[in-house]
Amino acid sequence: MNKINMKEKLRLIDNYWEPKIIGEANDSYVKLAKFKDEFVWHVHENEDEMFYIIKGTLTIKFRGKDVVLNEHECIIIPRGVEHMPFAKEEVHVMLIEAKSTLNTGNIENEKTVKDLETI
Amino acid sequence: MNKINMKEKLRLIDNYWEPKIIGEANDSYVKLAKFKDEFVWHVHENEDEMFYIIKGTLTIKFRGKDVVLNEHECIIIPRGVEHMPFAKEEVHVMLIEAKSTLNTGNIENEKTVKDLETI
Repeated sequence: MNKINMKEKLRLIDNYWEPKIIGEANDSYVKLAKFKDEFVWHVHENEDEMFYIIKGTLTIKFRGKDVVLNEHECIIIPRGVEHMPFAKEEVHVMLIEAKSTLNTGNIENEKTVKDLETI
Repeated sequence: MNKINMKEKLRLIDNYWEPKIIGEANDSYVKLAKFKDEFVWHVHENEDEMFYIIKGTLTIKFRGKDVVLNEHECIIIPRGVEHMPFAKEEVHVMLIEAKSTLNTGNIENEKTVKDLETI
């Protein structure tokens, strides 16, 4: 049973939009990711998603509304709600997600990551 | 769909060792708590527990080992592992826990909180 240091783990992440698993609890994975620029509009039909901002600013675009998240802020996106993460500058994010969650939800494109690395 | 600001929510918490629910995702609650001094040795037989440190220092005592957690560090305590949180000074903690989790696990005493408030 060891602690997890977010800053150390984040140093191991090079690429944007590629979440890495840092732990699991019950039916969820705890993930870390670096985001920059636009992701892709998508929806998770069966999973809620939690984003917690460790460093930087993340905008979650919803149809008709943007939510801007800063350090020490989080959002829980309920299943079924279409969204698109966007970050003007690099942002460091912790995600709490059901193990079944695919990063691009209902969409498959070049940003889809099916086999997540554990760091 | 609104964001959650941890610092604002923490200002609503007066008492130590009384976790408050700030959101839910899938089968878990996201909770905030302030801890100070000793809790109680306990075990969660069926639930893993995640602690993430927002401010301050938290020691988790295990039988034979202490783990000291600082800001931006977290730990996942697997089900079945006896532990006791301890904080020399006030510490602010986010918890990710299965909805069924009782704060004192297998123990019932004056620190047990059965009906958690949502803030």
